[in-house]
Amino acid sequence: MIDRKEIEGFFKGLQDTICSAMEIADGKAKFQEDIWEHTTGGGGRTRLMQNGNIIEKGGVNFSAVEGKVSEDMKKTLKIDQDADFFATGVSIVQHPENPHVPIIHMNVRYFELSNGTYWFGGGIDLTPHYLDKKQAQWFHEQLKKACDTHGISFYADYKERADNYFFLPHRDETRGVGGIFFDHLSEKSMLLSKSQIFDFVKEIGEAFAPIYTHLLELNVAKTYSKEEKAWQYLRRGRYVEFNLVWDRGTKFGLVTGGRTESILMSLPPQANWAYDHKPEIGSSEKETLEGLKKGIDWLNLA
Amino acid sequence: MIDRKEIEGFFKGLQDTICSAMEIADGKAKFQEDIWEHTTGGGGRTRLMQNGNIIEKGGVNFSAVEGKVSEDMKKTLKIDQDADFFATGVSIVQHPENPHVPIIHMNVRYFELSNGTYWFGGGIDLTPHYLDKKQAQWFHEQLKKACDTHGISFYADYKERADNYFFLPHRDETRGVGGIFFDHLSEKSMLLSKSQIFDFVKEIGEAFAPIYTHLLELNVAKTYSKEEKAWQYLRRGRYVEFNLVWDRGTKFGLVTGGRTESILMSLPPQANWAYDHKPEIGSSEKETLEGLKKGIDWLNLA
Repeated sequence: MIDRKEIEGFFKGLQDTICSAMEIADGKAKFQEDIWEHTTGGGGRTRLMQNGNIIEKGGVNFSAVEGKVSEDMKKTLKIDQDADFFATGVSIVQHPENPHVPIIHMNVRYFELSNGTYWFGGGIDLTPHYLDKKQAQWFHEQLKKACDTHGISFYADYKERADNYFFLPHRDETRGVGGIFFDHLSEKSMLLSKSQIFDFVKEIGEAFAPIYTHLLELNVAKTYSKEEKAWQYLRRGRYVEFNLVWDRGTKFGLVTGGRTESILMSLPPQANWAYDHKPEIGSSEKETLEGLKKGIDWLNLA
Repeated sequence: MIDRKEIEGFFKGLQDTICSAMEIADGKAKFQEDIWEHTTGGGGRTRLMQNGNIIEKGGVNFSAVEGKVSEDMKKTLKIDQDADFFATGVSIVQHPENPHVPIIHMNVRYFELSNGTYWFGGGIDLTPHYLDKKQAQWFHEQLKKACDTHGISFYADYKERADNYFFLPHRDETRGVGGIFFDHLSEKSMLLSKSQIFDFVKEIGEAFAPIYTHLLELNVAKTYSKEEKAWQYLRRGRYVEFNLVWDRGTKFGLVTGGRTESILMSLPPQANWAYDHKPEIGSSEKETLEGLKKGIDWLNLA
């Protein structure tokens, strides 16, 4: 039987592996680490990389916290009994310097209650400032590969959930080209054992570093203009809008007394807003916007 | 009896008056106007000033919209019957170029349902990037003057509400030095007639231009350093956090299909985030943070 210590241990190791891979890929910046304690028990290791060769600001955070379920948590989790909780996970957002390098987000997490209820959740999604369809396809192919050995419908199901989750209703835009998103995975909701679900989550977590470092390699040598940097700042503004208005994890963290600086590490170093900005027809900015739609079959582009 | 046309007409005129005053004060930028229609009826006049002598980005928006109360609105307004609604108001946020000039926000609004229920709401609050206690005191004195002829407890009550409303729980910081905030004012909840409440709302609306143009005069000639501009960008990051995470008006607008570009005009042209930024003890940045607390009696500083 998988226990929480084993899961926590895996996530901690995953943080180390990913941080090493990111430092090697960046070639300049090193992660600074803050160790912190949660008010009700446990804590985390917040790691931040800044002003690198490639990464302008990137966080790779691990946490494992526990305590009594608070009233705010009960509301959000829709449970009514008193219980203790334990939550652990790794959360990543990388904001690159070069607008031709995509932003990436990854999260894997595990949650359990003292009554025996547990679930896994997580996801990866890619947010290019400039859409490259081939790369979006390649990205989705990697996710499909990581999913397919664990469940034949996983990729299709979790890709659709990502389209619906990483979405800004007030802009009618997806955050980027999507990816996969899953939540509340447990043996109750699936035909898999806890250990099989954990294997899936492990594979997703371990897929992050090879996927993102490959995308860095493909794009980092591209030159960019002041205008392209300005477009990146506007796209980051949308990233801020998603994270602060719609992301349930961010809201949950801020409302339940999570560590603000760790939660908001997902925000870019700089974001801009321009009133009613509309890129020119035929521009690569416009083409990017046209790719920010739900339901695009990235594996089989026409 | 005051009817909605009269209130709408006043708000429209108020928008004109404030825009003129802001153009004169700025001396360079002119408002650009977008006229828009709401999907269910009515519409608005969105006005934006950019890259002025003083104002980097400033919105002065008027709207008057109507329609059937949607399911989302019912939830937010906590009503269960079907009804038509009408909502009109003026909303202002000004982001100045100079970090020694404060950000200001003002809103006056009126809402009514076809069952006869109505209420007024609104507020003004000031967000200095650098706290000037004398100016904060003067600002609160002006608000107290505007309140006092309408209700002896108005200033104290609405000042306290502003402290509680313009507050970032995840930062344990107020947005700025507060001001006044009021909502659901009607003859049902007060000892005043509708016309007397409207007089109060009018006085608050009319107080905006003289208050803010005076604050511009006091501060605009101050020089500032690159470091002070960097601090302004961080403070604007907090403004973004408040508006997107906590502001009920923003959320309500985005969820109920309001015009996104008008609602998010409150966001600054540029905002920055720095991980765990802590100003030096004794610095004016640190002193500013220490002034961002609830319950400060700005009228009677020690």
